[in-house]
Amino acid sequence: MNNSAESHINESPNKPFNGLTDKLINYSLHLADNSLILGHKNSEWAGHGPILEQDIAISNIALDLIGQSRNLYQYAAQLINQNPDTPAFKIDYDREVTEDDLAFLREERDFKNCLLVEQPNGDWAQTILRQFFFSTYQYFFYKELVNSKDIQLSAIAEKSLKETTYHVRWSSEWVIRLGDGTEESNKRINKAVDELWMFTGELFEAAEYEAGLLNAQLSVDLSAIKNLWLEKVKATFEEATLEIPETLPNQSGGKRGVHSEHLGFILAEMQYLQRTYPNSTW
Amino acid sequence: MNNSAESHINESPNKPFNGLTDKLINYSLHLADNSLILGHKNSEWAGHGPILEQDIAISNIALDLIGQSRNLYQYAAQLINQNPDTPAFKIDYDREVTEDDLAFLREERDFKNCLLVEQPNGDWAQTILRQFFFSTYQYFFYKELVNSKDIQLSAIAEKSLKETTYHVRWSSEWVIRLGDGTEESNKRINKAVDELWMFTGELFEAAEYEAGLLNAQLSVDLSAIKNLWLEKVKATFEEATLEIPETLPNQSGGKRGVHSEHLGFILAEMQYLQRTYPNSTW
Repeated sequence: MNNSAESHINESPNKPFNGLTDKLINYSLHLADNSLILGHKNSEWAGHGPILEQDIAISNIALDLIGQSRNLYQYAAQLINQNPDTPAFKIDYDREVTEDDLAFLREERDFKNCLLVEQPNGDWAQTILRQFFFSTYQYFFYKELVNSKDIQLSAIAEKSLKETTYHVRWSSEWVIRLGDGTEESNKRINKAVDELWMFTGELFEAAEYEAGLLNAQLSVDLSAIKNLWLEKVKATFEEATLEIPETLPNQSGGKRGVHSEHLGFILAEMQYLQRTYPNSTW
Repeated sequence: MNNSAESHINESPNKPFNGLTDKLINYSLHLADNSLILGHKNSEWAGHGPILEQDIAISNIALDLIGQSRNLYQYAAQLINQNPDTPAFKIDYDREVTEDDLAFLREERDFKNCLLVEQPNGDWAQTILRQFFFSTYQYFFYKELVNSKDIQLSAIAEKSLKETTYHVRWSSEWVIRLGDGTEESNKRINKAVDELWMFTGELFEAAEYEAGLLNAQLSVDLSAIKNLWLEKVKATFEEATLEIPETLPNQSGGKRGVHSEHLGFILAEMQYLQRTYPNSTW
């Protein structure tokens, strides 16, 4: 912990942290975008089969994630409205920013979700593995974020931790069931590992907006949770008779707004209504 | 109640009702299809905006409906497996029928949902009004089905009634908010009334498979709940400053497998996975 940064902290919880407000807004948006995009992708399974029971499970996880994104967008909107000069988000009409503006009116380059969550659903194995990688990350992340000096982020983390614990349990059980299942299921989950492993490194790379926040004890030290994540993945993979790929090129960029080709399509579909009928509730 | 039909009833709850089994299977499938198709349509809203809070609400209703359909498909599958000679559903492989077969492997002409639930989402007003019409119907329907002599249908009705009560409250509040809201919202909900009213009559038309069941006190007397439905709609419309259309041609056919052009597209999307990879869990 860098003590010299302590002077930057405004101790009143309802006021922005001097000099760190823009970073805090971007950090909240990054976390919100992660949850919204994965929630949106998961929700595509609803009623699509082939197993109704699992459709319902993945859809419930989708709703948990979209709920988390709401809390985070609401907090970001509050900070933006308190600091109308922030470059983090501008609207060209005369009213306060809402959570829905942040979800449905931002451009692709403004989205700060990691690349992992925007990867295609693929088959069931790929959806499951994406969830397992991300939920395991979120679990250790929220466990740390509970200690943030930002009481709102701390409260959101505490609230989200319980449901994330369930997401980890559910997805890890599926990884084991698929890996240690039939020849076909093992082949498919191995293919998913090859597709997705390269996107896990970014989860632990701090973006520019995270550095100052960490010094002020507002954000999570990603290097501290990386090993916890890896241990959990290794233990689960062992039970699933899966192996971690030896070397794969690490893909990153999402956290700073540089996305894969997939996000554009996701946003086009997700934001269609709001962009077609701006400022309406249709 | 036709007393002469009583002799058809097999009083053992675990055995099929003599002579009525096919009808009971079709009736269960009809109810399951209603819930699955509307749940599937509603789930398309998840993460599409423009209001995250309402996306989550309609998605939760979607999950309730898909959950109801599971219970009903499971019961239908049980009856089919106990009566492998039934013409209601055939599979060409040697295993028991599952709920997923019934949801994802039946043809358009086999689906028995009413036309109302397969109508397009349209704008928010149309989605809301479709939900209000259907949930209000389901509420009075389940209240009666609780009294069915079929203890499984009775149990499913009891379980579903609580969540349906919430669906009616939520959707009726929205109808009032839109009808008695802005000029634009009033215009849109009026347009939705014009689009959907013609599909409400079918909710109360008994299909061929319902007649024998009613005599045996297994199914709901639709003519008895029609007025209850109409009173609730009238009371809500009055608060919403809406009027019921004077005369509109009544559209029906869904309950006997004759569907609008919309269902084919819904099934193509919903059943894609199961039909592309038959018998797999992908």
